[in-house]
Amino acid sequence: MRYSALFGKTIKDAPKDEVSKNSKLLTRSGFIRREVSGVYNFLPLGLKVLKKIADIVREEMNAIGGQELSLTALQNKESWQKTGRWKTFRALMKAKTQLETEYPLGPTHEEVIVPLVKQFVSSYKDLPLYLYQIQTKFRDEKRAKSGLLRGREFLMKDLYSFHAQEKDFNKFYEIMKKTYKKVFERLGLDALETLAGGGTFSQFSHEYQVITDAGEDEIIYCPKGDFSANAEVSPVKEGEACRLGHGPLKKSKAIEVGNIFPLGTKFSDAFGLTYKNKEGKDIPVIMGCYGIGISRVMGAIAEVHNDAKGIIWPKEVAPHDVYLIGITNNESRIKERTDEAYDSLKKAGLDVLYDDREDAAPGAKFADADLIGIPIRLVVSKRNEGKIEFKERKSAKSELLGLEEIIKKFKA
Amino acid sequence: MRYSALFGKTIKDAPKDEVSKNSKLLTRSGFIRREVSGVYNFLPLGLKVLKKIADIVREEMNAIGGQELSLTALQNKESWQKTGRWKTFRALMKAKTQLETEYPLGPTHEEVIVPLVKQFVSSYKDLPLYLYQIQTKFRDEKRAKSGLLRGREFLMKDLYSFHAQEKDFNKFYEIMKKTYKKVFERLGLDALETLAGGGTFSQFSHEYQVITDAGEDEIIYCPKGDFSANAEVSPVKEGEACRLGHGPLKKSKAIEVGNIFPLGTKFSDAFGLTYKNKEGKDIPVIMGCYGIGISRVMGAIAEVHNDAKGIIWPKEVAPHDVYLIGITNNESRIKERTDEAYDSLKKAGLDVLYDDREDAAPGAKFADADLIGIPIRLVVSKRNEGKIEFKERKSAKSELLGLEEIIKKFKA
Repeated sequence: MRYSALFGKTIKDAPKDEVSKNSKLLTRSGFIRREVSGVYNFLPLGLKVLKKIADIVREEMNAIGGQELSLTALQNKESWQKTGRWKTFRALMKAKTQLETEYPLGPTHEEVIVPLVKQFVSSYKDLPLYLYQIQTKFRDEKRAKSGLLRGREFLMKDLYSFHAQEKDFNKFYEIMKKTYKKVFERLGLDALETLAGGGTFSQFSHEYQVITDAGEDEIIYCPKGDFSANAEVSPVKEGEACRLGHGPLKKSKAIEVGNIFPLGTKFSDAFGLTYKNKEGKDIPVIMGCYGIGISRVMGAIAEVHNDAKGIIWPKEVAPHDVYLIGITNNESRIKERTDEAYDSLKKAGLDVLYDDREDAAPGAKFADADLIGIPIRLVVSKRNEGKIEFKERKSAKSELLGLEEIIKKFKA
Repeated sequence: MRYSALFGKTIKDAPKDEVSKNSKLLTRSGFIRREVSGVYNFLPLGLKVLKKIADIVREEMNAIGGQELSLTALQNKESWQKTGRWKTFRALMKAKTQLETEYPLGPTHEEVIVPLVKQFVSSYKDLPLYLYQIQTKFRDEKRAKSGLLRGREFLMKDLYSFHAQEKDFNKFYEIMKKTYKKVFERLGLDALETLAGGGTFSQFSHEYQVITDAGEDEIIYCPKGDFSANAEVSPVKEGEACRLGHGPLKKSKAIEVGNIFPLGTKFSDAFGLTYKNKEGKDIPVIMGCYGIGISRVMGAIAEVHNDAKGIIWPKEVAPHDVYLIGITNNESRIKERTDEAYDSLKKAGLDVLYDDREDAAPGAKFADADLIGIPIRLVVSKRNEGKIEFKERKSAKSELLGLEEIIKKFKA
């Protein structure tokens, strides 16, 4: 992609109503634009990152037998009345037609998936089932000043598991813990598995918390990594020792980027979702649900991976592999060399953002490269005669390499 | 994928409230399930088809320089008041919070994209721009009895083009005509480029119409293929000759699967979207918009590609490449051979739906293969000793082939 043609150029200052670090950075760098408070448009660079995050999550959900489907945003009012949440779910928005028909506008999908699964499950042979979607959700958040961290419209992966027996559920819950660990590692996030409350559903749940001052949650955790609990339910306090004798435990703000949740038979009971066991007896299905905030993850990455110059994307979710700059000073020879490098890199399978602007000063190009945060910056210039300057975004050092060496480096 | 584990099995009869052919077929075969009238959940097989359609459209939009972004469903009420459509757009749904804040729930995205583009366009150098998204739209359709053909929530590709001059727009409009022709060919749809009215925006537009009795539009067309117009605006009547002297012109019902539309400066004027020309003068930007109903295309394909036994998916959008059946009669040798065939086909890169059910009779498996409509059916059985029966869904004939021959056939 040539930067000159890219929709969504950088700007110097974010609008004043962007107060969070993530929305300031992502707005300045041309990844997102606010539509209304808590609701963001994703520009081409932003959508690329969002899709990469979604694809990593999708891969890992498929790897454990998850089947992807797509549930509706407009839902069935009767189902919400059945669970009682039509009246009690504060953040529920309602889509209204001119004739005053009202639809629940999906903030979550238990009311859709349980009646759906009921159509297909009758015997123990139909279980277990692991069903997920990556879909837009709507919630009327009271405060929506945290950019992508808390949106009124946001992208989420939600998986629902259906089991015949408690022990099957417990096994799968542990598999999910491992899978979430892997997912967040791949996403470049240090997310602590954190004990949390179970609300009205169960005794406990687990959250995946990324430590940062921008977080809205508070956790108590062991710096050695063997304990973390949401401060609301933590059995121990800041300053105490953890169970393994480490300490002192710390307290910090954190962003919840995912959660896993035993649902028991709460929703199965509401909709009469049962299966026949081997003896022909009707038994309620046991459920769990497992969320990852896809757009929130993008916000969390921007929030924790940055410096004074801009974002520093982890490789796996970066919008491009390489940011290529030519310092041409109107010399056609340098421009040709940069064009050639662009073609060769593309041929080698690399996804290059080529800053081909003729009216931008070298300093402006370097500043934009840093702001946008693509992991590798390459510079062709007269000074680097014959070689290309190779610099990682996260490092201050650079080296001069030949094009072939650079391509080899990427393939390694 | 093993059919035994697949979520979304076939059923014998569709529920009575599914009255359209496409929703009956897609419901029976386990591709979709209605949530509320005009709103469908996509089960794993259905989502696969939907994604394949979207990917083909995406490829062709990228090929002509389209840049993908993602605009919001919750929109800005002020923008809709600016264009006057807050009051006049009958099908607009409004998302309401408990505090009675109202958001327009996107039935279309001019009110989002024009103010967005205005943030980035100032000079003629910033044009042209071709921006598109593949996104869920919401419309309060009065009648929603046509399955995926007319939904209250549906998936759509909408591209918006922005030009400095009328002649640039005209050129791009012709490029889009060619691109749409190619898209619908790849999707296996015979879609006629059809002259249509321009509404309040322009003198004319073009629709892409697929002839079928299930359609809600009426077109007048030349059987030789050189003329088609929406009956509402056709300058000629059924039975007359076309301009090339062919005839008689026919009249038919048809489904509009796409449209392309000159918008002129209607929306640019509403939002003050202008650019500075070389002389520094402010000139309003000229726009076009170009839609394809992704979920409607899926409905249209089911509507026109079927027989008494079920759906016949065109290869490019089929949920799997192959439907594999073993007629084992509880012989472990045949089961092993079918398992081996499954593994080999997968290794060869084919996407196989393996009907591994042990409790289903051969007749039931054949019936499901026909209903689901995957292009190729393979049968391993004792009778076919050493060979595999290869049958195309659209053909009545079959042949016996070795596994290697079959794999070669696919690669050809």
